This record gives sequence, C-alpha cells and structure tokens, in this order.
Amino acid sequence: MPKDIITARATDYSQWYLDIVRNADLADYAEVVRGCIVFKPTGYAIWEAIQRGLDERIKATGHENAYFPLLIPKSFLTKEAEHVEGFAPEVAEVTRAGGVELTEPYVIRPTSETIIGHFYAQWVHSWRDLPLLINQWANVMRWEMRTRPFLRTSEFLWQEGHTVHATEAEAEAETLLILNDVYTDFLEKEMAVPVMRGLKTEKEKFAGALRTYTIEAMMQDGRALQAGTSHNLGQNFAKAFDIKYTDRNNTSQFAWTTSWGVSTRLIGALIMAHSDDEGLVLPPRLAPRQVVVVPIYRNDDEKALVLEAVDRITAPWTGRLRFKIDDRDNLSPGFKYNEWELKGVPVRVEVGPRDVEKGSVAIARRDVPGKAGKEFVSQEGLTERIEELLADIQTKLFAKALAFREDHTRTVADYEELKEAIETGFARAYWAGSRADEQKIQDELKATIRAIPFDQPEKEGKCIFTGQATAQQVVFARAY
Amino acid sequence: MPKDIITARATDYSQWYLDIVRNADLADYAEVVRGCIVFKPTGYAIWEAIQRGLDERIKATGHENAYFPLLIPKSFLTKEAEHVEGFAPEVAEVTRAGGVELTEPYVIRPTSETIIGHFYAQWVHSWRDLPLLINQWANVMRWEMRTRPFLRTSEFLWQEGHTVHATEAEAEAETLLILNDVYTDFLEKEMAVPVMRGLKTEKEKFAGALRTYTIEAMMQDGRALQAGTSHNLGQNFAKAFDIKYTDRNNTSQFAWTTSWGVSTRLIGALIMAHSDDEGLVLPPRLAPRQVVVVPIYRNDDEKALVLEAVDRITAPWTGRLRFKIDDRDNLSPGFKYNEWELKGVPVRVEVGPRDVEKGSVAIARRDVPGKAGKEFVSQEGLTERIEELLADIQTKLFAKALAFREDHTRTVADYEELKEAIETGFARAYWAGSRADEQKIQDELKATIRAIPFDQPEKEGKCIFTGQATAQQVVFARAY
Repeated sequence: MPKDIITARATDYSQWYLDIVRNADLADYAEVVRGCIVFKPTGYAIWEAIQRGLDERIKATGHENAYFPLLIPKSFLTKEAEHVEGFAPEVAEVTRAGGVELTEPYVIRPTSETIIGHFYAQWVHSWRDLPLLINQWANVMRWEMRTRPFLRTSEFLWQEGHTVHATEAEAEAETLLILNDVYTDFLEKEMAVPVMRGLKTEKEKFAGALRTYTIEAMMQDGRALQAGTSHNLGQNFAKAFDIKYTDRNNTSQFAWTTSWGVSTRLIGALIMAHSDDEGLVLPPRLAPRQVVVVPIYRNDDEKALVLEAVDRITAPWTGRLRFKIDDRDNLSPGFKYNEWELKGVPVRVEVGPRDVEKGSVAIARRDVPGKAGKEFVSQEGLTERIEELLADIQTKLFAKALAFREDHTRTVADYEELKEAIETGFARAYWAGSRADEQKIQDELKATIRAIPFDQPEKEGKCIFTGQATAQQVVFARAY
Repeated sequence: MPKDIITARATDYSQWYLDIVRNADLADYAEVVRGCIVFKPTGYAIWEAIQRGLDERIKATGHENAYFPLLIPKSFLTKEAEHVEGFAPEVAEVTRAGGVELTEPYVIRPTSETIIGHFYAQWVHSWRDLPLLINQWANVMRWEMRTRPFLRTSEFLWQEGHTVHATEAEAEAETLLILNDVYTDFLEKEMAVPVMRGLKTEKEKFAGALRTYTIEAMMQDGRALQAGTSHNLGQNFAKAFDIKYTDRNNTSQFAWTTSWGVSTRLIGALIMAHSDDEGLVLPPRLAPRQVVVVPIYRNDDEKALVLEAVDRITAPWTGRLRFKIDDRDNLSPGFKYNEWELKGVPVRVEVGPRDVEKGSVAIARRDVPGKAGKEFVSQEGLTERIEELLADIQTKLFAKALAFREDHTRTVADYEELKEAIETGFARAYWAGSRADEQKIQDELKATIRAIPFDQPEKEGKCIFTGQATAQQVVFARAY
C-alpha cells in the first residue's frame, strides 16, 4: 500500500477525497446500480458509530423509533404542492410487481413526510395524543446524476424524525431541540466537527417547510457541507394529509408538524473535516477502533515473548477501549503502521522485544504524524495514558477544525470582497437581497447562502448587494 | 381498553393473534401499500431488542456489517437457474427513474445473493482474502398475496449474512456455526423460544442452495414457524457470479459461499410462543420495558407521598433494569394494569400510601396472571427480588414452551397416525419417500416436512409412506 496513491489535498482536494475513500476501504462504486455505492465494512462501522450516538440522543429527548413502508403511492407526493415540485423529478418508480402492471405506481421514498402524514392522520385524534414523537432509520432514494461516495448517492441511509404538535410554538421548540441537543451536540462532541447553526433562506428551505434550520460544517477546502436539517413544517403537511386533533375546548384543529434528518453524508463530512494526506483521521469517540497494537518480532522466540506481553498489557482494556491486536504473520510492522494510518485508528501501540525488557511501549497518535506524535512510555499506567491521549486527540481535532473555520471565515463589506472570500471559505455579509438576487449570486459565483446564522451582529450594516441598511447577516459559501 | 376485545386462543387462534397485534399497538396495516405494515413504536422496540441480541452474536463470531444496494439489475436474478425460479414471480420492479424509462429494469432486492455475489467476485482474489464474513441489516421486498403482520408482509426487515470460503468444509462449518451459536443461542436464551434444528429436504431448501439448515419453533396452536435458515450455497453462486480465488498452489478455484437470515418474522414467533388471552407476554431479557411502576393515590397528599417513595425505590434501578414509572394522571390504576398486561411488561410494581407506611410494595408477574402471580414484598432488597423474578420468568417461559412442544410432538408409526398428529403439533416419522411423495402429503394434509432433525433415532424403522426400511426420521407439521 504505497503512500503515493493518495493525492495531496493541495494538489487536488476532490481526488484526495476519492483516494481516501478507496484506500481506507470505506466504499465501492456500484456501477451496475446507477448512482449507488456499497458501504464496505470499514465505512459501515463508522455509520454504526454515528447511529449509536444519534439514536441515544434521539431517545434521550423523548422520541421512539418506528418503521414505515419503503413504497409510497405516487399520488401522495402531489398532495403538498411545493413538496412534489422538489421531489417528483428525482424519484424511482415501481410500476410492476408480482408479475403484473400496477394500476397506480409507487415511488421509492425520497423522504417520508407524505406516507407518514397519511398514518399520522389516522393516529392523531385528541390533544392527548400529542406530541407524537417518532423517528425512523431507513434507506431512501433520490435519482442523482452525479455520484460522490457518501456525499451524493442515489440510495443513502439516514434517520428521519417526524413529529406532530398542538401548537406552532411547540413545533418550533421541537425543531430547535433537535438542531441543538441532538445534531449540534453529536457533531461537535462525538464527531469533533464544529457547526454553524442558522436558518435557511426561503430559496434554500426544504420543499414544503415553513422554516428550515441547518447545521453547516466547513471542509478543509473551505467549502460548506450541509450536515443536517430540521424543518418546522407548519400546517402544510397537516392540511395536505388532514392531520387534525380535538383541542381541550373540543374544537377540531389542524396540527403542526416537523421533520428532521441526517444521513450517511456525515461519513463524508467526517472524512473531509479531519483527514490528511496520509489517510483517514477519526475522532476517538467515534472511531470503531481506537487503538491498534502492533507486535514486533523477528523470530519465534521473540514472537512468544512479545505476544505474551501484548496479552498482559491489553487484558485490562476489554470494555474500556475499542482495540485490535494486529498479529498477522505475513506482513511487516511498517506495512501495518501504514495500513492503520490509512484507516485512521487514533492511537497505535508498538511492542517489541526491547520494550518487553524495559517494561515500555511506543505509542503514536494519528493526528500528529511522524516522530512528533510518537512517545515511549512505561507499561505501568498505560491504560490511563492512552485514555488521556484519546481525550486529548478528541479535543485537539475539534479545536483544529474550529480554528480552521475561523481562519477561513471573513466578514465582507461588498460584492468584490465576497467574490474573494468564497474562494477560500465562508463569507459573512449583510444581506437584504431578494430571492432573485440570491439566485443571481449563485449563478455568478457558484456560492449560496448557507444560513442566516443564529449569532447576528449588534449593529446594522449595508447589504453587500442592494446597499440597503439591514441588521441581518448571512453566510455565503460554495457547498457540497 | 376492555379485555373482551382479545379473542380467546381456544376460540380462534388466528384472530387472537391479530387482536394481540392491534391491542398491544405493535403494528398498523398499510392498506395503501399492498401487503405492507407500519412497525409502530411498541413493535419496533421489540425488533431493536432482537437486532441487538443478534448483532452482538454475529460480531462475536467474526462477522462485520456492510450495506449493499437496494436495487438489483433484473438480469442478475437469472444468473442462477433455481434462484430465478424461486424469486422472479414475487419481485417488485423499478422501470422508471428520474423521469425516464430505464433500459434495464431493476428489482427491489427479495434477498441479496446476486448483487452481493457480483461484488464478491471483484473483492475476492486470493486465499488470503478468505474467509469473507459479512452481514447486512436491510429491508427486502417479496410481493405477497396474503398479509399477516410480521409473519408475511411484502416488505420486511431482516439480517442477511453472506460469506465466502475456500473449501466446502469451511462453508459447511460456517452454516452450522450460524445455526447453532447465533440463531439457536439467541432464540433459546433471549427469546425463550426452543427450536428444533435440522436440515431441509430438497423440496423445501432455499432456491439455489446446496443444503438449507433451519430452526423451527412451535407456536401455541401446534403449528411450526420457520424462524431462521442458514444455507450452504455450495459453488452455485460462485459459478453464477464468477467468485474465484487463487489457492496456495497458485491455482484458480471457485469459492464456496453461504447465506443466512432471520427477519421481523421473529416478532410474530415471539408473540405466538408466549402470549396469552390477556395480551402480549414478553421474556424479560428481550422486553424493551422489564418493569412498570404504577403509583396509587386518591389525592394530592397521597400522590406526593407515593411519588416520593417511587423515586426512592427506583433510584438504584437506572442502568440495572429497564423500567417505566406510569404517572399519568388521567388514568386509573386498574386501567394501567390492564394496559401494561396487554403490552406484556414482565413485572408490575404497585405502590400505594399503605405500602409507603409499611415499607412494602406489591409485585405482579405477567406470566402468572391474577392473584397467583402477585406478592407483597419489602422495599428493602426489592431490586434484587425483581432481578430474581425476571430471571425466573425467563426460565419458566422457556420451560413452558419446551414442555408444550414435547407434549405436542408425537412419533407416528403410519400415515393414519400422521394425519392425527399434525392436527395438534409435530409428527416425527421414519421417512424414505420421494419429493413427489412429499408433495402428495402436502396436498392431502397441508403439512410439510419441516426438517430432518439433527437428533436421529438409533434404530431403523419403516417409512410411514413407502414402508421401506430407513434410519432417517423427519418432522412433519403444518406451518406458518
């Protein structure tokens, strides 16, 4: 596995990403199925770690999981006018089944607001049934023209939450609870990816939503990646699917609904936020394997000696650390170091005959490649030392990503500055433009308003496009 | 929630099952999507518990999870002759996507041997790549004419393992490892469902397999439910998809593959194995909620007193027991008892003002309804008492199901006895008949050979159909 098969980020960021995906063995292209990939074990293990962290938070905030059908009667899509416009062009249709042509085709869910709305209308009767707080882990399909592993695939995996509330205020609180306590908390604490939170503009919001909130992460090329969205759907879907409840005064009311989701895209975000030219870099809290132990020996005597020490050293780790002993016989230690570096294991422990003699080991941290990240430590207290190191790596990865974002975020005063700023990162700008203005900028600069961020300036300024005075800043960026 | 909405098992077993599913709020019919159901939170939580227990065992036996595409090019199905015959009639087809007609339609996976075989052919090169041990959690679709929630639905959820080996012996060992250490161990220890293990006859084996092993469980009406199968696929799929490896002598060889799966059908098995005329009965190890606490009070003073005691009593339970405090204000204790009985929570704890005074509580075990299952115990040592009780319920449920199966299994000497025996349960019979004979019995009796069980008699006997001497016994039953 020679190192030069990974293109340097500085040379070609886009190719670097594909090289990481291939060399870390995360995914395979499914050329026989348009736009799809295979999630290989190393890639899927990251998704499992993401699922665990999110599922815990989704349940802790009072939601339960359920599962709704994959297929949606095609006519359901048309019940919400904006929704059908957004999704109809990219659905896959089932027109034949069990050997016969269907009278009404089904679509494979591109998202489940419509089919779930249909059931919620039957389940919700009284204010006592509310709030209804359900999440689903599922595959969805949107027929895509261009594929990029994890970032854009026809089939992807995700969670989609769908909730029903009695009032607009409750729906709004739910939307923000998910954005803050589930998504932001998970991305920042577990994935070590800082996010910018904010509201989407009318142009960028979800098809059918009243308001869409977003978390946007910055990748190492300065582009934005929309990592998760949380939608206050208002009464749009309640009206389209007749989700009504009887309130405490015995009056029938349309309910308020929300939906929110994050997907296997997060694997792409994770790769692009932390990895380097040597391969994948994974934050310890999320890494399927946190530590790899490489025994070093030249003959059977040394092997016996070293493996005995490795067993003794790692005995207390079970249940405390996720580790692997790489005792493959046919590969050199150097080959193994390289492979685990490529695969992003946060800490490597090397044990040779000299170490056994001296009661020491060598440990290397993945986030600091080369000699600078290597130290020789005593076997005594090793477990605690590794735990400290893992915690330190987690903290440093977040700090590094945050510093990178701050270094690559500029507040711009005019359109010229905007043009320049979006070449390298995020541009904060006063904005009072119209939807058409927004489109014009997108056409000219290939940049979009990622969000109207929650943190807003105290003073008014001048819109960079219209020159109007405004208190509102937005963040422009090019995006994945 | 009056009790008489559950039909008694003795009256109509089939209706009883549907009544349990509805009243315990496990699923909803998705009439708008042919043959599909919605897995409601209570039902899906059981599936999550099943997934946890199986996933742990699948990983402990050396397998990793991955994810392959939902869609399969239709032509793939035809590559294995028996396989296409078995599955082609029941697939759903995607013929249009992204607004255009597809030149080759896709089928939604009814099972993934073909698409996974296609990738394995690209991944496997050398004996060093073997064994390849992968599992997938996924949804699959088989267009069904008749629906029965969990037991038979067009879309269902499952795990499907797909492995590649260098030799027939290794593939056979894998097939049996899964049957024994994963499926049997899980069903018997966690689900408290005893299973009969054995080999399927040629007539009953998986379309495309060399040999299919099965675990068969007996339901309370004496019918068999095929709970899981493990297939040694021989070289059939390796030849169809060109899965070859270079052996240690540098010779190219076809590999040997296996596949194995269990599905959301297990939820149906669980319901039908243990539940009674009062509702669902869940084994404690699998129950999403093991204990429900119902506080009893008539006024605010009592409420404060009782809830304070409940908080104190349950404080040590976090992390030890999965419990819920049912403090809903608008419902009577009696209503709550009934609801949790319906939903199968293994242990109920009642705490009233008298109990607070006396330092006691009442506990009721779900598997012994009424007064016989209720006892008054001290609050001191309550956690341990409940843990003992849960362990006892788990053991008793298994013992009861096993005794039931033994009581309803007869060894039959001739065709007349077979006819009688399959009216109430399993019939063990000496068998040397042909595939045509097997079909004849199925047509006449609606019973099939469920398995050639692993435990075989020591002596020869006479085939109940042909009269031939044979050492082989099989088990006949009617099946779900």
